[in-house]
Amino acid sequence: MPFDFVRSPYALLQDMVGPTPYDGVLKEYEAWWEQEGRAISDAVDRAQTPWVRMFDTAGKRVDEILYPPDYRRMLKQGYRSGVLWRAFRDQTLLPSFLLLYLTSFYDCGLSCPYTVSLSTVLPLSKYGDAAIKERFLPNLLREDDAVWQGATWMTEIKGGSDLGANVETVAVPQGDAWQLTGDKYFASNAGAELAVAAARPKGAPAGVRGLALFLVPRWRRSGELNYTIRRLKDKIATRSVPTGEIELRDSEAYLLGSAEEGIYLILEVLNVSRISNSLGSVALAQRAIADALSFAESRVAFGRRIVEHPMLRTQFDERVRDLRAAFALAWEASRLLNEVWQERRPYSDRYHLFRLLAHLAKYWTAEFAVQTAKWCMEVHGGLGVLAEFRVERWLREAMILAIWEGTAHRQLLDGLEVMERKQAHHTLLQYLAPASGAPEVREIVEAIDAHLKLPIEERERTWEPIGTRFAKVTAEALLQKMPVQKTSAS
Amino acid sequence: MPFDFVRSPYALLQDMVGPTPYDGVLKEYEAWWEQEGRAISDAVDRAQTPWVRMFDTAGKRVDEILYPPDYRRMLKQGYRSGVLWRAFRDQTLLPSFLLLYLTSFYDCGLSCPYTVSLSTVLPLSKYGDAAIKERFLPNLLREDDAVWQGATWMTEIKGGSDLGANVETVAVPQGDAWQLTGDKYFASNAGAELAVAAARPKGAPAGVRGLALFLVPRWRRSGELNYTIRRLKDKIATRSVPTGEIELRDSEAYLLGSAEEGIYLILEVLNVSRISNSLGSVALAQRAIADALSFAESRVAFGRRIVEHPMLRTQFDERVRDLRAAFALAWEASRLLNEVWQERRPYSDRYHLFRLLAHLAKYWTAEFAVQTAKWCMEVHGGLGVLAEFRVERWLREAMILAIWEGTAHRQLLDGLEVMERKQAHHTLLQYLAPASGAPEVREIVEAIDAHLKLPIEERERTWEPIGTRFAKVTAEALLQKMPVQKTSAS
Amino acid sequence: MPFDFVRSPYALLQDMVGPTPYDGVLKEYEAWWEQEGRAISDAVDRAQTPWVRMFDTAGKRVDEILYPPDYRRMLKQGYRSGVLWRAFRDQTLLPSFLLLYLTSFYDCGLSCPYTVSLSTVLPLSKYGDAAIKERFLPNLLREDDAVWQGATWMTEIKGGSDLGANVETVAVPQGDAWQLTGDKYFASNAGAELAVAAARPKGAPAGVRGLALFLVPRWRRSGELNYTIRRLKDKIATRSVPTGEIELRDSEAYLLGSAEEGIYLILEVLNVSRISNSLGSVALAQRAIADALSFAESRVAFGRRIVEHPMLRTQFDERVRDLRAAFALAWEASRLLNEVWQERRPYSDRYHLFRLLAHLAKYWTAEFAVQTAKWCMEVHGGLGVLAEFRVERWLREAMILAIWEGTAHRQLLDGLEVMERKQAHHTLLQYLAPASGAPEVREIVEAIDAHLKLPIEERERTWEPIGTRFAKVTAEALLQKMPVQKTSAS
Amino acid sequence: MPFDFVRSPYALLQDMVGPTPYDGVLKEYEAWWEQEGRAISDAVDRAQTPWVRMFDTAGKRVDEILYPPDYRRMLKQGYRSGVLWRAFRDQTLLPSFLLLYLTSFYDCGLSCPYTVSLSTVLPLSKYGDAAIKERFLPNLLREDDAVWQGATWMTEIKGGSDLGANVETVAVPQGDAWQLTGDKYFASNAGAELAVAAARPKGAPAGVRGLALFLVPRWRRSGELNYTIRRLKDKIATRSVPTGEIELRDSEAYLLGSAEEGIYLILEVLNVSRISNSLGSVALAQRAIADALSFAESRVAFGRRIVEHPMLRTQFDERVRDLRAAFALAWEASRLLNEVWQERRPYSDRYHLFRLLAHLAKYWTAEFAVQTAKWCMEVHGGLGVLAEFRVERWLREAMILAIWEGTAHRQLLDGLEVMERKQAHHTLLQYLAPASGAPEVREIVEAIDAHLKLPIEERERTWEPIGTRFAKVTAEALLQKMPVQKTSAS
Repeated sequence: MPFDFVRSPYALLQDMVGPTPYDGVLKEYEAWWEQEGRAISDAVDRAQTPWVRMFDTAGKRVDEILYPPDYRRMLKQGYRSGVLWRAFRDQTLLPSFLLLYLTSFYDCGLSCPYTVSLSTVLPLSKYGDAAIKERFLPNLLREDDAVWQGATWMTEIKGGSDLGANVETVAVPQGDAWQLTGDKYFASNAGAELAVAAARPKGAPAGVRGLALFLVPRWRRSGELNYTIRRLKDKIATRSVPTGEIELRDSEAYLLGSAEEGIYLILEVLNVSRISNSLGSVALAQRAIADALSFAESRVAFGRRIVEHPMLRTQFDERVRDLRAAFALAWEASRLLNEVWQERRPYSDRYHLFRLLAHLAKYWTAEFAVQTAKWCMEVHGGLGVLAEFRVERWLREAMILAIWEGTAHRQLLDGLEVMERKQAHHTLLQYLAPASGAPEVREIVEAIDAHLKLPIEERERTWEPIGTRFAKVTAEALLQKMPVQKTSAS
Repeated sequence: MPFDFVRSPYALLQDMVGPTPYDGVLKEYEAWWEQEGRAISDAVDRAQTPWVRMFDTAGKRVDEILYPPDYRRMLKQGYRSGVLWRAFRDQTLLPSFLLLYLTSFYDCGLSCPYTVSLSTVLPLSKYGDAAIKERFLPNLLREDDAVWQGATWMTEIKGGSDLGANVETVAVPQGDAWQLTGDKYFASNAGAELAVAAARPKGAPAGVRGLALFLVPRWRRSGELNYTIRRLKDKIATRSVPTGEIELRDSEAYLLGSAEEGIYLILEVLNVSRISNSLGSVALAQRAIADALSFAESRVAFGRRIVEHPMLRTQFDERVRDLRAAFALAWEASRLLNEVWQERRPYSDRYHLFRLLAHLAKYWTAEFAVQTAKWCMEVHGGLGVLAEFRVERWLREAMILAIWEGTAHRQLLDGLEVMERKQAHHTLLQYLAPASGAPEVREIVEAIDAHLKLPIEERERTWEPIGTRFAKVTAEALLQKMPVQKTSAS
Repeated sequence: MPFDFVRSPYALLQDMVGPTPYDGVLKEYEAWWEQEGRAISDAVDRAQTPWVRMFDTAGKRVDEILYPPDYRRMLKQGYRSGVLWRAFRDQTLLPSFLLLYLTSFYDCGLSCPYTVSLSTVLPLSKYGDAAIKERFLPNLLREDDAVWQGATWMTEIKGGSDLGANVETVAVPQGDAWQLTGDKYFASNAGAELAVAAARPKGAPAGVRGLALFLVPRWRRSGELNYTIRRLKDKIATRSVPTGEIELRDSEAYLLGSAEEGIYLILEVLNVSRISNSLGSVALAQRAIADALSFAESRVAFGRRIVEHPMLRTQFDERVRDLRAAFALAWEASRLLNEVWQERRPYSDRYHLFRLLAHLAKYWTAEFAVQTAKWCMEVHGGLGVLAEFRVERWLREAMILAIWEGTAHRQLLDGLEVMERKQAHHTLLQYLAPASGAPEVREIVEAIDAHLKLPIEERERTWEPIGTRFAKVTAEALLQKMPVQKTSAS
Repeated sequence: MPFDFVRSPYALLQDMVGPTPYDGVLKEYEAWWEQEGRAISDAVDRAQTPWVRMFDTAGKRVDEILYPPDYRRMLKQGYRSGVLWRAFRDQTLLPSFLLLYLTSFYDCGLSCPYTVSLSTVLPLSKYGDAAIKERFLPNLLREDDAVWQGATWMTEIKGGSDLGANVETVAVPQGDAWQLTGDKYFASNAGAELAVAAARPKGAPAGVRGLALFLVPRWRRSGELNYTIRRLKDKIATRSVPTGEIELRDSEAYLLGSAEEGIYLILEVLNVSRISNSLGSVALAQRAIADALSFAESRVAFGRRIVEHPMLRTQFDERVRDLRAAFALAWEASRLLNEVWQERRPYSDRYHLFRLLAHLAKYWTAEFAVQTAKWCMEVHGGLGVLAEFRVERWLREAMILAIWEGTAHRQLLDGLEVMERKQAHHTLLQYLAPASGAPEVREIVEAIDAHLKLPIEERERTWEPIGTRFAKVTAEALLQKMPVQKTSAS
């Protein structure tokens, strides 16, 4: 079939990115997933929300998260393969991106612990003082199974989009460190050995300007638990990452960077999550197409395999074309992050271009993942809605990708803002100049210029169709800009 | 709010259909749901697939389906309200349609038992001989809790779209009746006292022409079980209807109509399901909008309730407008079914118009339900993906509505066929003539005429975008044709 | 059959207690259970640990416990029937005991909310000052469904037997009330509107002497939650009562009685629980025998119903005889509680006799329930270990009865203590004098006198077989003392 | 502690059996369990009944049993360690017994697949003709992970004790083989590659004399499934073995031995199960004591660790003493089976002695396991009834051991029969002659002689207390006969 490559995330990466120094690692990692990981991931999804063992039999609070034993093997496989340590050894995020893509094809929830660990390592290495780095960084960069995990805890009970209003966790200085008290409501990778958390130093101004970013280890220096897990969230998917509610009570913490610039650090942390979410969404869409393809090749109706039915065949062609465009968008955003993540304020135009692409990518790829997962279920017909065949899993997973790290609504408006303030759409136009897709981009950039002149309420009220088209056109233009693809050329 | 009516299915019916003789019943039924039914429905969904008690302690096969006890109360509420008996007392399907809409707002899975019971009653009353009618019909039309339920069992393991190839159940004459042997793979309302089932009389030709429709009671005349339930399907939603795999083994059965015309009877049964599915999809979309509205009114971000955020406000406006159009499409199709369901071959143009609208409605309303349920989750942000808040339920339910009774793919192609063979799109144009939406319909009808001239493979390959636009335009035109709406006028 | 009465708790009460003014109520209550309650209880057990909805969608902490809706109907049935209010209207605990027995035959977990409500009402009415009684008591004695529930929260994480060492909850005076801070680890009827809780006033001595008993309402005077539920315990049975971990954080509370006598109030609360546990154990054993009987009457092996197999028939005879004796023990203890519960220190000999019987009854009846439930499973053979047939439920329930309110170990030692300190075994001997079983009791009382002369370590080390025999002999002697039984006479 | 050895099944075997050639294997196997197996076993128990995937996406019946992936690793560990192949390589069942004991300490359900595989291998090797042995035996004796599993399917829906009346599966000769049709209701190790099944050849007499034993492979010679799994049983424990309902429909089968002697073959199969059940029960009791010990050493009440409380300390002493006696009984029965299993009719006195001991051991050890598991829960107090701490698991497991392979009732009566017919109690007396416990045995043997003179009904009616005492005395006498125990000597 012309789209045989869709069955293998490694093949897609080869096709779209070309050879990299990590091909051996990726091949081996994919082989592990095919032989062992798939079944483990399936079992973890079935087992639903894991338990927390809050107390041991002696009555001591322990907050152990109880997964089936295989889970730990699956989790460690990515760390060992280098999703964290390679980035630091090789001074490039590329291996992390490649491994995240591959992971997400098999279990997009599992890429969350890797992502938040990366999102802990990056600010720690960039903003941590020497003592803190020396104390914590080596644990996160271990190549063996004793590696620590990171976590990023921002959102509180009143919602994650308006952090300025909703972060009520307070930080109080205490000797050379701080003490944090508050509740984190969507805390990914609950149980991590080291988290970064948003909090407001006592006396700091209201709103986002008063927020700062802190490191919070799992264990106090005294050896006791430094935070407790109130409960794990009963999510409909991404069950490979334990998301919990965290209680910080005079929890030991370490300020990263300066308190005044805290909000920028927080936004930099979100940059990584958005990129990872974009790569994960594309990988998930690829998986859904791959599963639909296998089914359509084996199912017969009206005398032929349904993959040969003309309307369905058209749908496959279009899905695969859109998959490539979505990949191009996510990948370019990733490449830019790799370029700019070490920048400090004032940020360059390149950084603002990255931000724009990150918003477009987060929005567009998740939407594509949801629609593709839905379509995959429809291709399976009645089997698609049976828990037995697990096809419905991809839609559950995709819905979380669409909501985590900011919904479409948020991405569209934040993208609008970076264009208004930084003219990032013009930077994009220059960036794309050689791409054959540019004319369409040029046209929409002009429409955006006009749109930006509207009063704010109306600007937001009527933005969605333009923003959507902008994302689509950008993705297609970026696809043109990618190196020649062997497979599609064949 | 201008769209306050969206919170009540009764209010929407008032608004769109106007007063009917059933307003008292509907009000009471809605009140019951608000007071008791919602919590029961929620508990049934949580409890997931019910158990089958296959054997009693004495080792006798009994195949009881074990729901929480409240389930039965919920189930009987609709029968008592008249979802079946009113249609026969008043000689109109209108009360059934109204009650199905209202049921589906609260539990679209529950409308399945009512629908398949109706789909059993209709062919029985239309095609059954006197003895059969006398024996079975009164049981299904009882107004008390001893009412029997019906069921419609067509699909077998190899799939439901190509019945001609995939129905392997065989019927053998036996005295004044028949014996059926085969396995039904998606058997809605497993455990029903009386089912209609597709089977092929021994010696009948291959393909759809050889199929006939039979009545299959739960109990043999000897008092023994007449069919067994191999297992219930572990569906992701519509848990208010037990869908099972049924084993027919020399099961007593009664032929409906003539064996030669069996396929037409089968298609007539599907007519009812498609209409009910369309009404249910609209009601589900209304529910999702209503839930999104409640949340958006209570959640605050950036200093105001999110319902006041301009982009979200636009989305509400558009969803509600589309809800009305989707309702208009489903309702017109329902009205037509009420007109034509007693027709026999050769069918009138009116019947073919109905068929076209039924395909468009099944396709378009389910798609709308899915997209609206997805959007409702996104409006809820992170809470949307937690099992705790049950918002994710609507997407699970909607996916089943989109797949049951034929996916989009099937509806689009079957709609195409009825236009090719019966020129039903021209009948539609005439039907719509007075409607202000007609110009756009006229335009697309011309496009269809051109499209129908393409060779079959290409015709199907490129049909989807035209078919989609046709459904949308038709819905909007039908909305124009509906009586003045009080609410939207206010 | 000679033991037909075993199928009905009402019949057993008639047989053992004779007519009471509550026969009408009891008959009606039993009829409700047979018609509706059994299925609800079964569904609640299946549904396992209920959910707690900790937060509403607006982010407000609410701690609602989510049972299937029928649960509330089942729960209210007992309150309406008068398990609380009749005791106060009629100034006798008799109706409470009768209703608890009957409840426990059907759902021994459900008798827990009734018991702990009673255990809240009694100390409140006995020790509460006028204002407190006026404020709270009427809510608990309502005859309609707005009735409040009570709860008794003593145990903390380090264990329930050594309260003196393990209660770490601290009470601090605050205006006319107190503030409690601490964690209760096994909190029955979590979510109750009013609880009694053990706490140590700040500055009070260590050990049991420093404990006091407080009333803790669910809601603060400000309308906010006064305590939170950390989680519900995942118990293997008694799922009809939500048992949770409670967090008291500056929770408003009201002292009952004087702080100095707190430990006596706590022990008086436990008196009620032990009695209820004893009645519940006997009722559960009756249920297990009834289920075994039904099965043994329907199952055939080696050519006859297994109830006719000689060895099994002997087992039935013995179980029923032991059931009567266990009932006699539990009932006499109950009757005595009714006599003495209003006593204050210094307690009478009658009170100490009650304490002795309460320990013997708690121990012996629970042991009998466990062994009978085990035997019932064995009678069912393979079906006994299938979740499907629910026979295994009785063993799960019985194990909780054996452990709640103090294990056998605790009851045996506490019984030993009341004999050593108060010579309660001699009071018992006098009490039994007319009973034909007395000679055996006399003999064992002498053995106990000898045993009490042993050094403490040895006394405890070798006590179990004597204590066990003492319980058995006492039960049989009390059975002799009961009024003539119609059924066994027939 | 004097009973430290109780924490390790290997230590107990060393202590009771002394060194064997398998010590290295056993040590390694125990180490694996401690490092990996415990967590897997726990996860399997939590996951409850596994799924059966009945059909693949292409609609083909496949009946795959879906365990978490780790399950297979756990299962294969025992086969690799030699629970089957060593017995054949070394011509002794000793290694099988040792490995079964050790397995059962960690997961007594898992010893079921090993046992039924052994119960398939033994009759196949003893009674199979050359062609059958050559075809099947090597698959079952493989030392790698491609090893086949066996299964033993006797019981049908009407019960397992009266096979003569209840086996309704019919066997019809077909070429060089047979075809079986019927339903097996408790089919352990459903999904096994090769089962032995009881069936009645068409035309054979009614009752047990008409039964024969057949080999039933999973796959027909054509490659299709040879039997189907109707469903897996939802058992309360032993979740490490999939127990199902099996549908045999013209299933290919091979007669073992002669049809006339079938019932003897069936009884020989049950011999192995009873022995394994006895060893498993002792191992389970050891586990429960070990867990109680760990808890009692860590929990403090009234100022000291509860293991030091005098009454509890006595209980530990007695449990450990009884554990040894129970082991002695199970082990002697095992040793005898190793001696006699190759005997054919007419059987020797040694064989009948084995049968008697097997009945006593099955009964007594299971009873001991149940009571010990119950006690272990009580030692844990409230934690004992929480699913979280898994202590309650041992009681669930023990109840299955008490019921599988015949309840106490059955064992007591069958033991009585072998004494009546074969005077096996006298053989036992001779066997025990040198043991110091013999006087008590002699006394009870005389009582039995008297008892055997009673009319049959009365003999059975009053047998239980004598039979119970006989089992206890025999166990203690056998303990005396065992070689000196190092541990108890210290």
